[in-house]
Amino acid sequence: MSDRHAPDRPAATRWLAEYALAFEYDALSADARRIARHCILDWYAVTLAACREDGITAMVQDELDAGAGGAVPVIGHAAAVSQYAAALIHGAAAHWLDYDDVNLAITGHPTAVVYSALLPLAQSRGSSARELTAAFVAGYEVACRVGRWLGDAHYRHGYHATATVGAVAAAAACARLLRLAPEQAATALCLAGTQAGGLKAMFGTMAKPLHAGLAARNGLMAARLAARGIEAGQDGLEAPQGYAAVLSPAPDWNAAIAAPPRDLHLMERLFKYHASCYGTHAVIECGRKLREQGLRPCDIASITLHANRGSETMCNIAAPQTANEARFSLRMNAAYGLLGLDASAIDAYTATRLADPAIIALRECMDVQCHDDMAMMASRMVVRRRDGSTLEAGHDAGVPAADIDEEAARLQEKFLALAVPVIGVHAASELCEAILDMDAAADLRALAVNVPARAPRM
Amino acid sequence: MSDRHAPDRPAATRWLAEYALAFEYDALSADARRIARHCILDWYAVTLAACREDGITAMVQDELDAGAGGAVPVIGHAAAVSQYAAALIHGAAAHWLDYDDVNLAITGHPTAVVYSALLPLAQSRGSSARELTAAFVAGYEVACRVGRWLGDAHYRHGYHATATVGAVAAAAACARLLRLAPEQAATALCLAGTQAGGLKAMFGTMAKPLHAGLAARNGLMAARLAARGIEAGQDGLEAPQGYAAVLSPAPDWNAAIAAPPRDLHLMERLFKYHASCYGTHAVIECGRKLREQGLRPCDIASITLHANRGSETMCNIAAPQTANEARFSLRMNAAYGLLGLDASAIDAYTATRLADPAIIALRECMDVQCHDDMAMMASRMVVRRRDGSTLEAGHDAGVPAADIDEEAARLQEKFLALAVPVIGVHAASELCEAILDMDAAADLRALAVNVPARAPRM
Repeated sequence: MSDRHAPDRPAATRWLAEYALAFEYDALSADARRIARHCILDWYAVTLAACREDGITAMVQDELDAGAGGAVPVIGHAAAVSQYAAALIHGAAAHWLDYDDVNLAITGHPTAVVYSALLPLAQSRGSSARELTAAFVAGYEVACRVGRWLGDAHYRHGYHATATVGAVAAAAACARLLRLAPEQAATALCLAGTQAGGLKAMFGTMAKPLHAGLAARNGLMAARLAARGIEAGQDGLEAPQGYAAVLSPAPDWNAAIAAPPRDLHLMERLFKYHASCYGTHAVIECGRKLREQGLRPCDIASITLHANRGSETMCNIAAPQTANEARFSLRMNAAYGLLGLDASAIDAYTATRLADPAIIALRECMDVQCHDDMAMMASRMVVRRRDGSTLEAGHDAGVPAADIDEEAARLQEKFLALAVPVIGVHAASELCEAILDMDAAADLRALAVNVPARAPRM
Repeated sequence: MSDRHAPDRPAATRWLAEYALAFEYDALSADARRIARHCILDWYAVTLAACREDGITAMVQDELDAGAGGAVPVIGHAAAVSQYAAALIHGAAAHWLDYDDVNLAITGHPTAVVYSALLPLAQSRGSSARELTAAFVAGYEVACRVGRWLGDAHYRHGYHATATVGAVAAAAACARLLRLAPEQAATALCLAGTQAGGLKAMFGTMAKPLHAGLAARNGLMAARLAARGIEAGQDGLEAPQGYAAVLSPAPDWNAAIAAPPRDLHLMERLFKYHASCYGTHAVIECGRKLREQGLRPCDIASITLHANRGSETMCNIAAPQTANEARFSLRMNAAYGLLGLDASAIDAYTATRLADPAIIALRECMDVQCHDDMAMMASRMVVRRRDGSTLEAGHDAGVPAADIDEEAARLQEKFLALAVPVIGVHAASELCEAILDMDAAADLRALAVNVPARAPRM
């Protein structure tokens, strides 16, 4: 794996370590700083939305029962726990609803892992928001580069890259926040790489979101142990039987070091604005566009939805009967878009909506056509009106927002939709503002979520 | 992986779960109970020997700094930590010196992982020693069966089976101690399997022993979370992209369910009595045998050591200059055996011994011959005496002790050699007795190691 043809370039582990350590807030572009804050805002939105799910409450209770001490507050709970327990619980919560941001470079979710690992460390050290931001971007970029390195073959072989790549990325982020020496940072990456686990066979179970928490905790521990002098060599990622060779059938280091299209992989971030399968997001956007152009449901004679071939098995449930089925229905979500219904809330797909005659009528006049040559997250909606005319709209949910202001507005909307039910309007608005202004703050106190205390059910 | 030709037999995950849950102390043979106690005695010996190594102290300090609460005492330290931190630290300590027991069915070290996971759970629950023993044997057997399942191909691919197999075994042991329902126990195995990591590329670094601690902690967490209702499916080990298929190029479930040669894999346990590479153990035993037959060094003209071909690259340093080189020298260790020198202490290979003319003279009259057809851990020593006569002895360190009384005596010797320097003669003798009599005790209080309090260096 080590690039033998370029003897002046350090081998992979060391290259990634030095790359992560070099991130500085002052060197980030204004756009990169804003997008990093967007990722963090979105992290709070999805973490707050999930923090009181039974599974998360069970994890908090388990840690308290097993003896987690520490002073890190658990979001949404009245408990304080160790840094490791906080990284674990928050990482699982951030990914619990599968509603967190995505980057296609790792076929996974970088923020859930990287920010969950960083937050307790930064809180405990009294880091500034700028240091936190630099470390976050370092971890995000390492996630994408390592994702590229292991490649699609890694995912296809059966690994959940959010977990396996995430652990190394979290270690890189924490190593940067701790400003480890290059040798220690390389050790941290080795310690994370040798802990990497996470099977795609767990998809559909609670273990999938748990993976993100485990990766966050493991990466944090890797960096902390390296800082304490634990040794694990300097070449564990690229060694002949190291991380890349063992975990991927076709690792490609050149893909890792190739420059991202726009300076940082962060620029290609994708946010989820709807609480449904990502494959249905484009039809919702198509419906919204046509509605904005004045299309009224009563004008519609028939609709054809064009989508990628993969949608056939992923999200083409024709007549959904449950909320979860609704999340995997192109027709249902196209109707939500056309009717201007909000699909951002966790409970957007209610029984009332499932039985709504207007929705049923709409989805029953739809036809779905799948195409091999359409982009994975793209859709096109063609509407034939009763007057015989047609109207159409297209959207590709795989393309990052071009307008950062619009992204900010939509993320605030999502944040409030998810946060208000948990912490109320006042605290949610304050937190939203604090995150978007965080770089000006001297410390991270404004990011400590003040939730109504709720004693864990023991 | 699931055995499709036997529809009445549960699939792998469920089979292993039910198998582990079925272990009862009363059903274990007297020999099995004794050997389990031997494994536990040996665990305390090697854990005490390593508990004050810098790396272990660093881990204790890290956990305290990260906020580990809890009431589980750390062996050799004045600290009390969470169950998870205790499993992690003790697991690493037990494997730190690579002096812990081995079972060739997993090409690894079952006790370091399984007992380290069980102890804090059992202490916290106030379990009886009999329950602890039954759960230990359950975990030990699952380790060996899963080791057989993943096979040599898993190890050759680059995984450290002590880690990857150990996590599942630890989960099985803890599931048995908690007496989980079969469905929850299967979930625990899935949660452990999806955390499985550990690269052989870490051998030679502190990450190798750390793996044992990580596996212990991960297995413990898997069982505890399953008990709390976290769901992870029922088929994660045998699913098409599950644990066995992803982690092994050639899994063989029939090897897992095949009956061990003598009822339990535990009967094939191997203990290390010398603080050297396992490949040198047989020549030490040969030397001891000839010495017991009356051979004196002054009678020796020349010696031929016969060993397995693998010894050439593993442990054939002709003229060792350091303690670590001495551990990998067939000649040096053969001399130790012939001279009756104790090689059981961690500091057995002193500078004085390295420069000892009697040892140097002996190793310089030795010739090493390696053979393709010798058993891996076997050696033969042929001595030509000055009077022209020859004398020879053979030993296979890959064969478990036939005489359990002799095993007990040797393990007590090893225990005292390692424990006395740490906790003193009185406490060491008491602890040794308590372990060998543990099944009669009502609780585990006698197994709490009372070490002189030493405040961690912060």
